[in-house]
Amino acid sequence: MNIGIVGLGLIGGSIGLKLQSLNHKVFGITNNNLNLQKAKERKLANIISNDYQILQNCRIVILALPIKDLLNPTKELIKAIPEKAILTDVGSVKENIINLVEKKIPESVSWIPSHPIAGTEESGPESGFAELFKNRWCILTPSKKSKKADIRLLQRFWEVLGSKVDIMKAKQHDYILSITSHIPHLIAYNIVNSTINIQDEKKSNIVKYSAGGLRDFTRIAASNPIMWRDIFIQNKKNTSKMINKFIKNLKDLKNAIENENGKKLEKIFTNTKKIRKEIIDAGQDVKKPDFGRK
Amino acid sequence: MNIGIVGLGLIGGSIGLKLQSLNHKVFGITNNNLNLQKAKERKLANIISNDYQILQNCRIVILALPIKDLLNPTKELIKAIPEKAILTDVGSVKENIINLVEKKIPESVSWIPSHPIAGTEESGPESGFAELFKNRWCILTPSKKSKKADIRLLQRFWEVLGSKVDIMKAKQHDYILSITSHIPHLIAYNIVNSTINIQDEKKSNIVKYSAGGLRDFTRIAASNPIMWRDIFIQNKKNTSKMINKFIKNLKDLKNAIENENGKKLEKIFTNTKKIRKEIIDAGQDVKKPDFGRK
Repeated sequence: MNIGIVGLGLIGGSIGLKLQSLNHKVFGITNNNLNLQKAKERKLANIISNDYQILQNCRIVILALPIKDLLNPTKELIKAIPEKAILTDVGSVKENIINLVEKKIPESVSWIPSHPIAGTEESGPESGFAELFKNRWCILTPSKKSKKADIRLLQRFWEVLGSKVDIMKAKQHDYILSITSHIPHLIAYNIVNSTINIQDEKKSNIVKYSAGGLRDFTRIAASNPIMWRDIFIQNKKNTSKMINKFIKNLKDLKNAIENENGKKLEKIFTNTKKIRKEIIDAGQDVKKPDFGRK
Repeated sequence: MNIGIVGLGLIGGSIGLKLQSLNHKVFGITNNNLNLQKAKERKLANIISNDYQILQNCRIVILALPIKDLLNPTKELIKAIPEKAILTDVGSVKENIINLVEKKIPESVSWIPSHPIAGTEESGPESGFAELFKNRWCILTPSKKSKKADIRLLQRFWEVLGSKVDIMKAKQHDYILSITSHIPHLIAYNIVNSTINIQDEKKSNIVKYSAGGLRDFTRIAASNPIMWRDIFIQNKKNTSKMINKFIKNLKDLKNAIENENGKKLEKIFTNTKKIRKEIIDAGQDVKKPDFGRK
């Protein structure tokens, strides 16, 4: 099957590598000259170009673009989507974008947003790898322009990449992901930022003693700033609501500490310990202590 | 040199394994029968017993005990510390404990608290390994009963285990560690606890989609509940102060998101990204994306 990927960063590049290993023909687009060069060196697609014409025979076109580019797709891009093709994206927020894109694309195109819950703190064409989607979940949030048979085909597509697929409404997606992904990122950014503020004059201390816990947060807080800026803003209602709940619970913990309520603390910490085992049992993290770092 | 270790969990067991590999003679104490059995199976010390008498010829005695046992050392333990020995611990909080122990031990004992900033989310005699301290920092916080020559010897001791050593006051230690270790743990506990509360009826969703960020926090939030209960309570002043700063900054971020102040968000997220590189350059975390998880 001919498959087009617009954007060859971490996600687009990883899709390209895996598809080629399965003998699909992959057409990759990137508008950035430097990335074009890097993508060619790494052979992220069979044909790599900045000319949208190469997409003309693609059955599936994946917009592996930053949210800001999805919010304002160029006319050139819209024009290049082949008739009756499946159009999907890989973005972390759905509700706003689904409607926006829906209005702009031709009637015959089957627009089915995807969100593969996979990634690392790196980005760009140098960062992709074929096994990124293995054992990860991918959520489809069909639009009014999603054809039923095409949803099944796109589901199969992600399964071939190694993912497990769930289908839900965009609104539900944005709510759940605010909990499992967006708030964890915001909290990581906030703790690292707070630490920088507090210790600005003694920065070396943060770095030196970071193995006590902080270093884990610095990995997440090293994620792509532009991408996360846009995720939080596009999902601002859920983000705000979750921050309020988080702060409320944190104040409860603070009170328990100040009142030396050891029983309460122990109960909460015993409870949180259980989830780790469930995540490992579900294959969503490695079993090794300390993530197997050495 | 003869070295005694009281408590053969993650830290005590790791010390025992490393020391034996360097041909020191290690005397290990544990009061728990099941742990005694496991410690013997894993050969965590040359001689392992629940009888404190084995410590009588030790030059250094390490109390690798939970904070609660340090706060209330048994008479039997106090009596077993050899005259003129170096006594140290491995606890994460110093100011309260330093004074408490100081009062209870004989005049001739050189009491020099240690804090090796190393560990995993696991605990118990099955979890130790010889290389735990390699390239990690260890902080010494001398007491009034620390002899100068003994501080130098204890510094050398930790260096032999693979650590780099800093010496500072207990008060400063508790302040810095509240930032680099205690607050990150509390925040991780809080985010996992908040998630459990929100999603209690849909727990499977958390687990399924946790690879989007949350799973990292579940590792830290799987740490020993008793240990962390006691750390927070023993360092409650610093913990409270830092929670307040954290909440203040989080509210600022929330406002920036609600007002769609992309510039501010981008600036903060770009700033936090830099620290990650410094931590990796300092050898305090692995360079691999996603901690090298596969």
